[in-house]
Amino acid sequence: MPEFLNLLLPSQALNKLSEAISFKPSEEIVSTKDALGRVISHPVIAPHPLPTFSRSAVDGYAVKARDTFGASESAPAYLRIIGEVPMGGSYQDEVNPGECVLIHTGGMLPVGIDAVVMLEYTQIIKESDVEILRAVAVGENVIMAGEDVEAGQVVLQSGTVLRPAELGGLMALGLTSVSVYQKLKVAIISTGDEIVPPEKILQPGQVRDINSYSLAGLVQNAGAEALVLGIIPDKEEALYQKVQEALALSDLVLITAGSSASMRDLTAKVITQLGPPGVLVHGINIRPGKPTIFGICRGKPVIGLPGNPISALVIGWLLVDPIIRKMSGIIQRLSKPVIYARLSANIPSQAGREDWIPVELVEQDDGILAKPIFFKSNLIFNLARADGLLCIPADQTGLLAGQNVEVYLY
Amino acid sequence: MPEFLNLLLPSQALNKLSEAISFKPSEEIVSTKDALGRVISHPVIAPHPLPTFSRSAVDGYAVKARDTFGASESAPAYLRIIGEVPMGGSYQDEVNPGECVLIHTGGMLPVGIDAVVMLEYTQIIKESDVEILRAVAVGENVIMAGEDVEAGQVVLQSGTVLRPAELGGLMALGLTSVSVYQKLKVAIISTGDEIVPPEKILQPGQVRDINSYSLAGLVQNAGAEALVLGIIPDKEEALYQKVQEALALSDLVLITAGSSASMRDLTAKVITQLGPPGVLVHGINIRPGKPTIFGICRGKPVIGLPGNPISALVIGWLLVDPIIRKMSGIIQRLSKPVIYARLSANIPSQAGREDWIPVELVEQDDGILAKPIFFKSNLIFNLARADGLLCIPADQTGLLAGQNVEVYLY
Repeated sequence: MPEFLNLLLPSQALNKLSEAISFKPSEEIVSTKDALGRVISHPVIAPHPLPTFSRSAVDGYAVKARDTFGASESAPAYLRIIGEVPMGGSYQDEVNPGECVLIHTGGMLPVGIDAVVMLEYTQIIKESDVEILRAVAVGENVIMAGEDVEAGQVVLQSGTVLRPAELGGLMALGLTSVSVYQKLKVAIISTGDEIVPPEKILQPGQVRDINSYSLAGLVQNAGAEALVLGIIPDKEEALYQKVQEALALSDLVLITAGSSASMRDLTAKVITQLGPPGVLVHGINIRPGKPTIFGICRGKPVIGLPGNPISALVIGWLLVDPIIRKMSGIIQRLSKPVIYARLSANIPSQAGREDWIPVELVEQDDGILAKPIFFKSNLIFNLARADGLLCIPADQTGLLAGQNVEVYLY
Repeated sequence: MPEFLNLLLPSQALNKLSEAISFKPSEEIVSTKDALGRVISHPVIAPHPLPTFSRSAVDGYAVKARDTFGASESAPAYLRIIGEVPMGGSYQDEVNPGECVLIHTGGMLPVGIDAVVMLEYTQIIKESDVEILRAVAVGENVIMAGEDVEAGQVVLQSGTVLRPAELGGLMALGLTSVSVYQKLKVAIISTGDEIVPPEKILQPGQVRDINSYSLAGLVQNAGAEALVLGIIPDKEEALYQKVQEALALSDLVLITAGSSASMRDLTAKVITQLGPPGVLVHGINIRPGKPTIFGICRGKPVIGLPGNPISALVIGWLLVDPIIRKMSGIIQRLSKPVIYARLSANIPSQAGREDWIPVELVEQDDGILAKPIFFKSNLIFNLARADGLLCIPADQTGLLAGQNVEVYLY
């Protein structure tokens, strides 16, 4: 099949498309409490230090450190307790040498205080006098104002995905709303004369639309909004119209091709017509998913995915997901996490091609077993059985049973 | 500190609480297209086989296999092309010996056909005659009806989380709605005289509520619904009333204690009052998060988390997340995925206690470096810098720089 000679490897194809995308997402202001998973669009600057005041890190007595110098169990220092720091308020009176104030974890240090002695190293001797059994240094058991964050410091960079910790940090600074990138809009078109909507009773030769819904799930998992635009028959004019509509509605268009070769050619033809530049990548050196097409039409990426639901999802996970995240403004610092497992069976592979194999993972006493799922096209429930995917790189001709492998959860 | 002697390890504490929970989530019917991340509450049974008809796996000619027996490039078989299988329809005419039908990938096999010859192994000799250059066996290049799924087969077990592949599979079967467990309701209460809502201008000694929002994010990430019930001062009666209200509204109650020891005691006291059985676990042999409390009140779990935002999130991730998933009906088959990294610095640890250390991950040419974040209490932006957590088990006294470690993304 000459059209598949000299194909790019998946990472090369991804780079080629990435470099051609000049999309910059718009911004919007959202309430911080609703911002989980959203992406920061402006560096967040601390309006004030954190903590805003010096606080005790322990329960104990707030002291002037020099009053405790030399104190030990055999030679305690004696201090007079002049009061208690109220939680959520400040201790107002002056503290003189030889005096101390009861303080709780998180309490505000009184003026003139520079350390806290833990309760464990003190002993009340009468109502208002306490023995200090251990010396403390200046700053000991104290969190200084600004120790977490200084005023004016950049606390979150643009491109940061907001996780629970970041939401908490924004709230600590009183930032109850936050500027984020708008969610990417991803249009999904299914094609094929044989494809019908899922609610339809099947006539002979018909199959229900799988890809619109599995890809919509993948798009949502990547933090974007999925626009399911329906099913188009194998007709050039109909596909052209629909892709044009999709380009007007969305930032990125996914087309799952009909399964026949002629239909795949149709997708490429329409992408070329709607360019320039049109088709950038036609076919990728990967299994499954070789017939994948990458293009740019009217400044927006258009991706032609194989009609086979397994191929569509594997390519979606491997190549569409990173495109969505990049276009969403996410700065991805780390590779995807893996589970290490022992392979249960030999897997042959063709040299020069990158293979991705769905595997089922089984936890055993001596570790995790990865059982490859050998599949024919179109068996969607085979993929539903899979926990993850493993890669056979292009320079290898297979993997051996017993070998340790990295499995990507998908 | 005698109250912390003989504490349970985190896994033991988790088991003790899990065993005491008898919660069974209710069910609801949702539209499959909106069911991403939801949990199947009834085994899903295939109403019909998949595929529903035998299909071609390739582009080629649908043949009677016996007509090709012995065919080769040097001695081809000759067949007459009597038509083309329409995509999305059936080929109606009878196929006699010596005849074949053009078929596309996914096309329905005509009656009397039992194999497909790939286009690459054929050659048109005149308009309606084709040379078959390779023999095919019965069933070759065919996906048989029911090969993916048989009618009546259980395709998804209860407790399965719906991922994109499962959504696609349900749609393939025409199952446009699905029975799932209702989302777990998790109430969150913050306590402490010093805590104020995030929108408030701070007075001396006050800090804004972090935990309500970071924990709400954690709850949502676990697939549950967070009910943020506000801030309660350090008063027994007020906390008692609020927990009572929370028990009426939710399936699981989280209380983040004020940071002082007296406030932690208050949480335990209220849980005991609202039992039986009340407090099951008071303090866990872990750092951070030692003052964690597990209890059951009126049949519902109540968890007292440390007030320190970092401790609250680490315990939330390690111990609350699995409780939420279990109560949500999820059957968790696998452990959490990890990233392998090389440790950048020595980390000391106390034997007999399990330590969890936030780390920043840095991708380098020779692998990933894990840089531990050594933190004092309450520095939320230190946790925002972290990519994951690593564990120092109770039987170890620390980790060494250069050592390979497993980092859990959190």
